[in-house]
Amino acid sequence: MKKYCFGIDVGGTTIKCGLFSTDGNLLDKWEITTRTEENGVHILPDIAAAINQKIEDRGLTKNEIEGIGLDIPGPVNEKGVCMLAVNLHWGQVNIVREMEKMTGIRTKALNDANAAALGECWKGGGAGHKNLIMVTLGTGIGGGVVVEGKVIAGAHGSGGEIGHVHVTEELNEPCNCGNVGCLEQVASATGIVRLAKMQLDQNPDQPSVLRGKAFTAKDVWDAVKAGDEAADAIAEKFGLYLGRALAAFACVTDPEIYVIGGGVSKAGNVILDYVQKYYRQYAFPGCKDAAFALATLGNDAGIYGAAKVVL
Amino acid sequence: MKKYCFGIDVGGTTIKCGLFSTDGNLLDKWEITTRTEENGVHILPDIAAAINQKIEDRGLTKNEIEGIGLDIPGPVNEKGVCMLAVNLHWGQVNIVREMEKMTGIRTKALNDANAAALGECWKGGGAGHKNLIMVTLGTGIGGGVVVEGKVIAGAHGSGGEIGHVHVTEELNEPCNCGNVGCLEQVASATGIVRLAKMQLDQNPDQPSVLRGKAFTAKDVWDAVKAGDEAADAIAEKFGLYLGRALAAFACVTDPEIYVIGGGVSKAGNVILDYVQKYYRQYAFPGCKDAAFALATLGNDAGIYGAAKVVL
Repeated sequence: MKKYCFGIDVGGTTIKCGLFSTDGNLLDKWEITTRTEENGVHILPDIAAAINQKIEDRGLTKNEIEGIGLDIPGPVNEKGVCMLAVNLHWGQVNIVREMEKMTGIRTKALNDANAAALGECWKGGGAGHKNLIMVTLGTGIGGGVVVEGKVIAGAHGSGGEIGHVHVTEELNEPCNCGNVGCLEQVASATGIVRLAKMQLDQNPDQPSVLRGKAFTAKDVWDAVKAGDEAADAIAEKFGLYLGRALAAFACVTDPEIYVIGGGVSKAGNVILDYVQKYYRQYAFPGCKDAAFALATLGNDAGIYGAAKVVL
Repeated sequence: MKKYCFGIDVGGTTIKCGLFSTDGNLLDKWEITTRTEENGVHILPDIAAAINQKIEDRGLTKNEIEGIGLDIPGPVNEKGVCMLAVNLHWGQVNIVREMEKMTGIRTKALNDANAAALGECWKGGGAGHKNLIMVTLGTGIGGGVVVEGKVIAGAHGSGGEIGHVHVTEELNEPCNCGNVGCLEQVASATGIVRLAKMQLDQNPDQPSVLRGKAFTAKDVWDAVKAGDEAADAIAEKFGLYLGRALAAFACVTDPEIYVIGGGVSKAGNVILDYVQKYYRQYAFPGCKDAAFALATLGNDAGIYGAAKVVL
């Protein structure tokens, strides 16, 4: 094992870059802008230039670099080819081939939610475990499945796309994916707001601090903590949908731990309480005692996971 | 790679034994009786004796044997320890340690449904694929999940326990596992009979060839093929429950192919038609074109998979 590696987390606006020691310490962290113009043709050359510059600035040699891990917001197949990344304005891009050509350094590429899962498994909320499912509750829902320390990319790059498990017949409007009744529609930040509106509409006489104003998922969880009865009912439903979905996934990979991250998880342990209640109700007996934890790496999960994938 | 390996499939009544070439040809197949008396203490010594005898009979040497793979009806952890196998009258048994001591040959152990999945992936209905989910529809439902050619044992030995995913609120009676509403309760051979009785009871005026007699799952599928309207409704419900469950699993490991085996699958391709219809409705778009196939190895799937696990 060489001394250093890079973990690169490519987002639609900025690219987070990390230089790591191969024993897992983040030595340097910086950001560059994601230039999406001209179908994003500048993105990989910009990253290669940043890496080459960092190597020069620190007086390193390429022989000391174990590899470059790079994650993107879109599906990546096992050969490191991106099939489509709307936020980067990319169609099909062979990330590994292009990066290796420009840097001379061995490269691996993966999906961003999968990178976050691997990062949390390595140094975050799931540290010390080798089998994990991570759920990132943001505007949408991302997910990643780690088995024996490796993240599952899937035959079509859709491994860990757990936001799109069907969980309810209650909805009529389609999900962004085209299906109807996805977990993302009821358990993401926007999903929680949807559930809340349904609760308030269907129970017009139930008092709630959420009534009569525009509110966010954070407002809902604040109301839960303040003892608001309607908010509690919303949280129960959120817990049912997410907990029962995780119980279904338990039958597949039987993880040691579930890690919940993303903006919604900032509400804290209260989220885990509602999810675990329903998980334990629906999970196969052998899996009921799996652990639950909040993510701890925040926005750095991606660079940690990207770095880990080359180790 | 050495020249030979053994695949041993331990059932509650008989133990199937196979001698394989390591390139995957079944050279010899025989059975011995499973002696469950005295808490099954004779089972592993009987297997070791059978293997040692076969090596002697064929004039082989232990240096030519790559390993012994052994599957049992119960959860097995990654160290090859059985936690509980009711049908063998076993509590905790360190299969790998005992077999290696008695034979001097490297041994691996796994769950029987997981072995069947690996066998079908290697030489059966899923041959040519590395990512697969297998469903065995028998009296109960067994399952196995293969990712990158390896079967997922799970943190608690419950990887692939897909018969116990929660699929319905329609039932009141508990599953053998203690939960209520498991896939096994509506899609196994006994589950199909349960669905059929519900269909006939809830639609007393619907004519059906199934009425007024004791029937099996095979009778239901025969009625489906004969155009029986009630049987078609039963098959639709079976397809909904199993197809939607597989679509949920697609979000986790995103397999290339689903292989359906077990006694129920003898009804043939008609089963796949009903399952695929609902799978395609509920699966994440990236996973919708996954393939479906019937298992082809029958009762030999276990010995094939057990052999593969040591290669």
